[in-house]
Amino acid sequence: MSRIDAIYPTDRITLREVGLRDGLQLARAIPSTRAKIGWMKRETQAGVRHYEIGSFLPAARFPQFADIEAMLDAGERLDIHSAGLTLNERGAETALRTGLHEMVCVISATDEHSQANMRRSRKSAVELVGKIVTMRDNDAPDKIVNAGIAMAFGCSIAGEVSHDEVIRLAETCLAAGADIVGIADTVGYAGPKQVGALCARIEKLCAGRAFIIHLHDTRGMGIANAAAALDNGARVIDASLGGLGGCPFAPGATGNVVFEDIVYLAETMGYRTGIDLAGLKAARAIAEEAMPGERFHGTLNRAGPPPNISWKASRAI
Amino acid sequence: MSRIDAIYPTDRITLREVGLRDGLQLARAIPSTRAKIGWMKRETQAGVRHYEIGSFLPAARFPQFADIEAMLDAGERLDIHSAGLTLNERGAETALRTGLHEMVCVISATDEHSQANMRRSRKSAVELVGKIVTMRDNDAPDKIVNAGIAMAFGCSIAGEVSHDEVIRLAETCLAAGADIVGIADTVGYAGPKQVGALCARIEKLCAGRAFIIHLHDTRGMGIANAAAALDNGARVIDASLGGLGGCPFAPGATGNVVFEDIVYLAETMGYRTGIDLAGLKAARAIAEEAMPGERFHGTLNRAGPPPNISWKASRAI
Repeated sequence: MSRIDAIYPTDRITLREVGLRDGLQLARAIPSTRAKIGWMKRETQAGVRHYEIGSFLPAARFPQFADIEAMLDAGERLDIHSAGLTLNERGAETALRTGLHEMVCVISATDEHSQANMRRSRKSAVELVGKIVTMRDNDAPDKIVNAGIAMAFGCSIAGEVSHDEVIRLAETCLAAGADIVGIADTVGYAGPKQVGALCARIEKLCAGRAFIIHLHDTRGMGIANAAAALDNGARVIDASLGGLGGCPFAPGATGNVVFEDIVYLAETMGYRTGIDLAGLKAARAIAEEAMPGERFHGTLNRAGPPPNISWKASRAI
Repeated sequence: MSRIDAIYPTDRITLREVGLRDGLQLARAIPSTRAKIGWMKRETQAGVRHYEIGSFLPAARFPQFADIEAMLDAGERLDIHSAGLTLNERGAETALRTGLHEMVCVISATDEHSQANMRRSRKSAVELVGKIVTMRDNDAPDKIVNAGIAMAFGCSIAGEVSHDEVIRLAETCLAAGADIVGIADTVGYAGPKQVGALCARIEKLCAGRAFIIHLHDTRGMGIANAAAALDNGARVIDASLGGLGGCPFAPGATGNVVFEDIVYLAETMGYRTGIDLAGLKAARAIAEEAMPGERFHGTLNRAGPPPNISWKASRAI
């Protein structure tokens, strides 16, 4: 089994907690390092194993990620799989010297968003993936490189994005040596038909290797889109506790898909997540206390799972 | 074309606004009749045509529905299709003397809920459908009878509900003369697999006639379930503005599926609703003002539809 298959197998589903990265990007109240570690620890106890723990970006501009080394240490103690955003060579250099497991590169599906988000062309963003792969090969061959395609379902700046274009970009990233690609509905434009259709094509492209679907619930479609993704080969889903999250360059793009609700969805669909909902509730309480004034989403957290029914009989993968 | 096909055709989708009935059942602040009519008027201008406007229940116990005659008059002026809950013969007698278009009967999928909700056995609830059909045939043959099966996806009191049981009940209701049947996830237990599977069976049973799917978003599955329903033959979906709603006998069952989000879902799936989202936002503002302290849901209302993309190219029915 290759390294990537061991981390993201295709014979079960993996939920990636991105709240500690995407969820803090726009946060008004930045939680303390202690609270972030407490949240991650409790969520790990609930069964979550994969985390985006921060970004390798200048601490002066992104104080919410200044403690990434402490988060990495905590992640190592908790024995989780840690991913971090590396948006430039300098960030990648830093990341390569740490115990981080996964370097996340972002490529925008449109040049317009690429310039606004990363001040580089789309072409340059793809080239950066290749450079980071080479750096990784030389310095830390155990790390994996994840190439996420932002705005894959429509762009808040440029509008429509064709599936052909996204497939071409994903293909280029894989050719450049990325271990896994992801497609992101960064601004929550898509409905389940769009997500299902693009996932089916990405699955075919990845030919037996997992890919990541990253959804925002901006227009209420998050769970429906996750269901469509699962129905069309997606086995790795990004989500955040309470649906925290957004993108500073995508106005109105508040809220990743709610982690708790994704767990419930998966269970009703017959996928076993191994994640304990009561434990997630406890982790959410830690995050909520640490981020006063922040809006947490999701109704499952309030209602709880049904006390007198189970989906054990549901279709397994 | 039969009467029922004219009201609920199967060649396009119909969204039923149930907020003025289901949405007010548990409301803390009852809106004034004037506000209710203002809400309905604005929503009608936005393109909504089908409403549950109240219940024929004792005004002393259900003051929120005491103004049902005024709502009927307003509905007639607005030329909408009006439905009202008739849970006993007395309610049906009253309804038959009014201009109401659709009498809604409720049958619980379980005896336990039937007793708790209507103080009658499930058998007696099915018999009541037959009685109301006979009364209708004699006194007001133009009205239609809708038989909704509550707790069709699991019961907060009795737990699991088998699809076979729901199909048997729906069959009995149709045999008793109901013009249309509905299946309700009253307490929001289901995921899309369950909804899709049961809708496919109900569609087969109804043999070309429409059926209604009534969803609650208690555990965040509402939109995913609506997508699965549409994919499996449902053409009539109940929803409420801002996801207002609940059931007094189903603890925790807050929130019908959000009307605005359903419109967006349908559009992304290639179904034309003819409903204007900006108009819904204006109607919602009226409802919110009239119901201070009430929790309105849905993220589409906040984000608005994407300004620079359309789903015109999506699959049409």
